[in-house]
Amino acid sequence: MGMSNSLMHILAGYASIVDSYLWERIRGDPGYIYKAATHLLRAGGKRVRPAVTLATASMLGGPTAASVAVPLAGAVEAIHNFSLIHDDIMDRDDYRRGVPTVHRVWGEPAAILAGDLLFAYAFMMVGDSRARGLRRAEEAYGVLAEASVKLSEGQAYDMMYEETWDVGVGDYLNMVYLKTGALIEASAKLGALAAGADSSVVSAMGEYGRMVGISFQIRDDILGVYGDPEKTGKPVYNDLRRGKKTILLIYTVEKTGRERVEKLLAEERYEELASLIRETGALGYAEDLARRYMERAIAILDGLDDIKDEGARGFLRSLARFVVEREK
Amino acid sequence: MGMSNSLMHILAGYASIVDSYLWERIRGDPGYIYKAATHLLRAGGKRVRPAVTLATASMLGGPTAASVAVPLAGAVEAIHNFSLIHDDIMDRDDYRRGVPTVHRVWGEPAAILAGDLLFAYAFMMVGDSRARGLRRAEEAYGVLAEASVKLSEGQAYDMMYEETWDVGVGDYLNMVYLKTGALIEASAKLGALAAGADSSVVSAMGEYGRMVGISFQIRDDILGVYGDPEKTGKPVYNDLRRGKKTILLIYTVEKTGRERVEKLLAEERYEELASLIRETGALGYAEDLARRYMERAIAILDGLDDIKDEGARGFLRSLARFVVEREK
Repeated sequence: MGMSNSLMHILAGYASIVDSYLWERIRGDPGYIYKAATHLLRAGGKRVRPAVTLATASMLGGPTAASVAVPLAGAVEAIHNFSLIHDDIMDRDDYRRGVPTVHRVWGEPAAILAGDLLFAYAFMMVGDSRARGLRRAEEAYGVLAEASVKLSEGQAYDMMYEETWDVGVGDYLNMVYLKTGALIEASAKLGALAAGADSSVVSAMGEYGRMVGISFQIRDDILGVYGDPEKTGKPVYNDLRRGKKTILLIYTVEKTGRERVEKLLAEERYEELASLIRETGALGYAEDLARRYMERAIAILDGLDDIKDEGARGFLRSLARFVVEREK
Repeated sequence: MGMSNSLMHILAGYASIVDSYLWERIRGDPGYIYKAATHLLRAGGKRVRPAVTLATASMLGGPTAASVAVPLAGAVEAIHNFSLIHDDIMDRDDYRRGVPTVHRVWGEPAAILAGDLLFAYAFMMVGDSRARGLRRAEEAYGVLAEASVKLSEGQAYDMMYEETWDVGVGDYLNMVYLKTGALIEASAKLGALAAGADSSVVSAMGEYGRMVGISFQIRDDILGVYGDPEKTGKPVYNDLRRGKKTILLIYTVEKTGRERVEKLLAEERYEELASLIRETGALGYAEDLARRYMERAIAILDGLDDIKDEGARGFLRSLARFVVEREK
């Protein structure tokens, strides 16, 4: 509990650094499109991705590296928010972070455009980092571009899987890596690049991010069924209602066959389905899987030498734990 | 006539170079999203932007520079197509390049995502150019990012202006620069960067692109009212029907007051409105304006020293002329 409070405190500190940068940076005309683009940013969010970037930079390079990394942290948050805005349109979600989604407030055309604008800004931000002394800007641009491609591919799989039951755990993990893991992987790599780390360390931190990202998404799936809507800010049984192929559903279908699950979904008997997911062991399986990814992430951190900021490493450890224990 | 045929021939040559690269590069899974992303590319298009990149590189740096520039040419075409896919959703257009638009075939969610995917690929392509020897990749990324921001801002103004009559010629020219000029500006700059040109030459070529872009859009506005739908591939009076604030309409309203124009629009008397636009001199004004931008573009080319490929300069001159004379 105390650890979690201290984690939230540090997370808030990182958030305020990246937010100051973002508020200053994302400005322009016409005003309405900038308001739409920053709507979800203003509504809150945990800023997990920028925190990974900043903490990684600090851990490997100290305060100078962290300062170079601020625009990169802004870039990953911009990409994340761009994808939220577009995903909300695609998924027809009305609420996010406790506020109406961008397309609900400004309409779909402006929401599409607001996402595009943020996407473009993310790449402008790499240029800012370069101006602050980033030596490997070319690599940073490449990392961001690759993560963006994967993000789109992951969302494409996610949408495709809504229409089929022919999805195994392997398909799921690939989808989740693309949709969530790749951007957190990029967040960590960018922090390492800001610190001028060796490419082996950049790769290792990429794997840390990947592991955190996948366990993050598994936890998201769990919260999507068992989370408190008051805390998550999302409607109860949202994922079930939409036929999202979460790890819980995939595992349950493997155990019981699809007929039983399909029947409960068709008849909107979500509470019974939630119980069934528990009974088949799917919930335990998912929790276990998330924990294993978390442990792997922590092992990577433990294996690093030449640490400039032990506090930052401690934060990244706690963050990996938080991700699989969080209630929102 | 002969010149125009030869121009189309050279344009087709550039198109085939960039297309080979694009077909090879934009591949992946899941298949449907890649099909959606490349749908409009496969449907044709003039490839004006990549031709500007390739010809500029060749003009200033010869064949080696042109080879380095191929992925950059791909990048501007990818950005262009991304914006077409998203604009078509926003504008609710059903046809483009003579085929149904992406959202008509795959639905809006997949179309949004297909655009995002292309956008991300554009930045991957700068990395390809770097692998082919581009020295100033960081600048190239920056140029592409800045153009992308402007593209979104321009579209935001365009949408905003659909709802108001309070738009002057200055507002229009700013909007058109952002929406069309900025990407052609970037296309020319990227070609100059591939050739390793001095920054003064990069700027000069940027201005060439800006001038060509603005005159291109003015011509587009003219074709939107007076063009042959068989040639343009767009429904007749499309812009009028949607209340687009084209240079023709802005000028006509300045001459006749908005009541008369609004009445004709409300009563869908488009043919009469087209006559009115001619009578007020708006058509002549727009044609004149486009021509002046074109002449400025050509003057910039004439002022360049140290040309490695006179044929490419001749092509860029003809292209500037073609843009204001084209029928599609």
